[in-house]
Amino acid sequence: MAIAKFDRYVDRHAASFVERLQALCRMPSVAARGTGMRAVAEQVEQMMQRVGAGTRAFRLGSGFPIVYGEFGAGHHCFVVYGHYDVQPVGQLTEWAVGPFAASVLDGKLYARGAANSKGDLVARLAAVEAYQKTFGKLPFCLRFIIEGEDGLGSPSLYRFTSEHADMLRADGCIWDDGYRDTKERLVISLGFKGISFVELRAYGANTDLHSKWGGIVPNPAWRLVQALATIVSPKGVITIDGFNTHVAPVEEADAKMLKQIEVDEAGLKRQFKIGGWVRNMSGRTLTKELIFGPTCTICGIHTGHTEAGAKTVLPGMARARLDFRLVPDLSPELIIKLLRAHLDAREFHDIEIIEIASAPFAKSSSTSTVARAAVETAAEIYGEPPVVYPLDPASGPVGAVCGVNLPPTPVVSFGIAYAGSNPHGPNENIRISDFIQGIKYFGRVIDRLAHISRDDFKERNTIEALLPITR
Amino acid sequence: MAIAKFDRYVDRHAASFVERLQALCRMPSVAARGTGMRAVAEQVEQMMQRVGAGTRAFRLGSGFPIVYGEFGAGHHCFVVYGHYDVQPVGQLTEWAVGPFAASVLDGKLYARGAANSKGDLVARLAAVEAYQKTFGKLPFCLRFIIEGEDGLGSPSLYRFTSEHADMLRADGCIWDDGYRDTKERLVISLGFKGISFVELRAYGANTDLHSKWGGIVPNPAWRLVQALATIVSPKGVITIDGFNTHVAPVEEADAKMLKQIEVDEAGLKRQFKIGGWVRNMSGRTLTKELIFGPTCTICGIHTGHTEAGAKTVLPGMARARLDFRLVPDLSPELIIKLLRAHLDAREFHDIEIIEIASAPFAKSSSTSTVARAAVETAAEIYGEPPVVYPLDPASGPVGAVCGVNLPPTPVVSFGIAYAGSNPHGPNENIRISDFIQGIKYFGRVIDRLAHISRDDFKERNTIEALLPITR
Repeated sequence: MAIAKFDRYVDRHAASFVERLQALCRMPSVAARGTGMRAVAEQVEQMMQRVGAGTRAFRLGSGFPIVYGEFGAGHHCFVVYGHYDVQPVGQLTEWAVGPFAASVLDGKLYARGAANSKGDLVARLAAVEAYQKTFGKLPFCLRFIIEGEDGLGSPSLYRFTSEHADMLRADGCIWDDGYRDTKERLVISLGFKGISFVELRAYGANTDLHSKWGGIVPNPAWRLVQALATIVSPKGVITIDGFNTHVAPVEEADAKMLKQIEVDEAGLKRQFKIGGWVRNMSGRTLTKELIFGPTCTICGIHTGHTEAGAKTVLPGMARARLDFRLVPDLSPELIIKLLRAHLDAREFHDIEIIEIASAPFAKSSSTSTVARAAVETAAEIYGEPPVVYPLDPASGPVGAVCGVNLPPTPVVSFGIAYAGSNPHGPNENIRISDFIQGIKYFGRVIDRLAHISRDDFKERNTIEALLPITR
Repeated sequence: MAIAKFDRYVDRHAASFVERLQALCRMPSVAARGTGMRAVAEQVEQMMQRVGAGTRAFRLGSGFPIVYGEFGAGHHCFVVYGHYDVQPVGQLTEWAVGPFAASVLDGKLYARGAANSKGDLVARLAAVEAYQKTFGKLPFCLRFIIEGEDGLGSPSLYRFTSEHADMLRADGCIWDDGYRDTKERLVISLGFKGISFVELRAYGANTDLHSKWGGIVPNPAWRLVQALATIVSPKGVITIDGFNTHVAPVEEADAKMLKQIEVDEAGLKRQFKIGGWVRNMSGRTLTKELIFGPTCTICGIHTGHTEAGAKTVLPGMARARLDFRLVPDLSPELIIKLLRAHLDAREFHDIEIIEIASAPFAKSSSTSTVARAAVETAAEIYGEPPVVYPLDPASGPVGAVCGVNLPPTPVVSFGIAYAGSNPHGPNENIRISDFIQGIKYFGRVIDRLAHISRDDFKERNTIEALLPITR
């Protein structure tokens, strides 16, 4: 059987694939810091070229490069999204190993970015390599779009998609977000929540003052706290005027999918070390809230002095960052409008709203070519059918990539992380075995798309490769 | 006239006094950081010895030394309180000059600690020097108690006062907190508000999580915001259950003093760059609130991520620091009790209260020897009578020093700062002219105490000097 030959190639080269990933993880590429980003982009481009891609790097203004790589040619085309930037490392003291040492301990590779999502990028390129070595050239066009600003709200990607829409015409898009849950089931998503990420600011005196003035000088920290307290109730319900009327009821097909999803409550509680969920939810209610509930999260507050030493000041400024995860039919524009009106109605005209990043929700069908290829081949590798999320609780610039086509390109998302990967926290890690399985799984997805490409789409026009393919 | 001789000495040595202050300000002594504290304590001890004090340094446990210096001998005794530690510098980027360069620009000396309160210490020792050179030995006992933990809640001082109460027996105490207001009037205080400085903490997951969990995982930042919002109303009124019933009505004598005090509303608004006061107060109401109103100030909040880069996390912990400035009859113990009960009554059992520092209020009479010496000599230097505050809006370990005696030692407080000194913020500075005037003023206070000592107290027993005086 041909796929066995593919698997043997992967097994034989497993050590070398891991080394490639380690090399990439050792290049710090924290978008928020912005150093060394070009070097990583060049490394990604070279990795693609080595596997035989035609490549091009797009530099849009002062942004970090978008690396484009194209494999194969044929009747139709699929886009693979990824990013080479990583999240800030946070408190170094919370890391057991250096975040850029890419140490392998107990079968796990620890590195900022290993799970989110350099591991996926390296695994997917490894799968393309193994596929080509085993079966030859891809009978369809596979386009990798790898950006460097995932952690910054993807400004360059948005510009790229509007300037180079032709490169994004595709029959489907494969995203890089996914993991095996606490019960080791592969989680596949058919879309993502949108996001509106804002900063609220309140101003007082022109500088931090001695707190003896606390009784008479307006304190922006109290002002901000009072404003925030009107946005979410003590029970954790979003109380912005008119907000909930814009949340669409869950569609029937989605409700059916929800029934197949079981949140591993005990496992997650253990992992997060929490005693219970918001509003003591559980079971179906919890699952529905996780997937189809909009969120409003305080991601950070900073004001005054909280470091060592008893410094009693009256702060001159206070700021809070909030992110809203958006379900149908909430849009980032609507959030800003509702929030402003809500604050104004309570005489919080002075609270400034600054938009940091946003993305619309993206939701697609379970019957698309990419969705079926991903869902129907998963059991071969993971031993049981995947858990299919109609909407992923996370967000991304999916709308930018898929929304250039009308109707939007269908999207499917999965990845090589696991429940303990902690992709935004300390000690981010992946399991080597998941990484290798991820290569084999992506090979099967490619193989399925190749068959579909040969069989189902014969009558369609060929989509020409955009770049000369040099092998 | 003898005092003219004193002034000439001060003027002749003015440059050298400024240099002494610069040398002291160049030694960083941020108690919160804790480095170099012993060196500064030794420097202070040497400065006292050079002026002829008998000295001793007390090291209590692992605390920073308390430097004790004794001048003169006679029928009675006065204590001078000061501290050699300074506040943290805060954001270095907000400083126009190095906080420990002690640069003199435009007649102002810029340094962390120049106003609070190394300038007072050096000025007072300079006055003692000039007085001794002009008039000879002090006819009373003057005891300097200089601690190094003002910024830490004075733990060593509290221990010192209980172990060495004999060193604090005195007819009066001169504190080091005071300034010239925006209208250049000297502000003298007859006591201080108490303080209760606490940290409130809320806990969620064991680490910061990806904010996609925002809908179902409890967010300690929301929890803290909701709890805080119950403590102070949007109008800025403290709403802790039972709190206001413990605020004593203003006494008649104090009400009379209040009428003499005029807060320079326009000047302070300009200085702080604010449009108005809390609850749009003004005039008498504002003055009363500043001096006899209790406060609850958010001094700082920290949770999650607010630095550069759009890091969307669900925080694992949130903390806020609050300070309460306490007027009669609020005590730190009462605050903790009321706050705990208030939070529990609203099901905020999970919000942890950590006591950081505390001090009781201290309030004394306007007819005490030290108060009269300070108030009645001020016009000679400052051209007009001082503004006398029955209670200073700031706080300090006054109770520790004055409360060892029963009845408590009367206290009076003044200093060499001015309205633009910004003692807890960036660019802390004093005017050289204020520093020199402060020396001359302190000389007059000493002179008045010397006369009172000779005239009024002849029949009293001599208080023996505790340390051998070596000149």
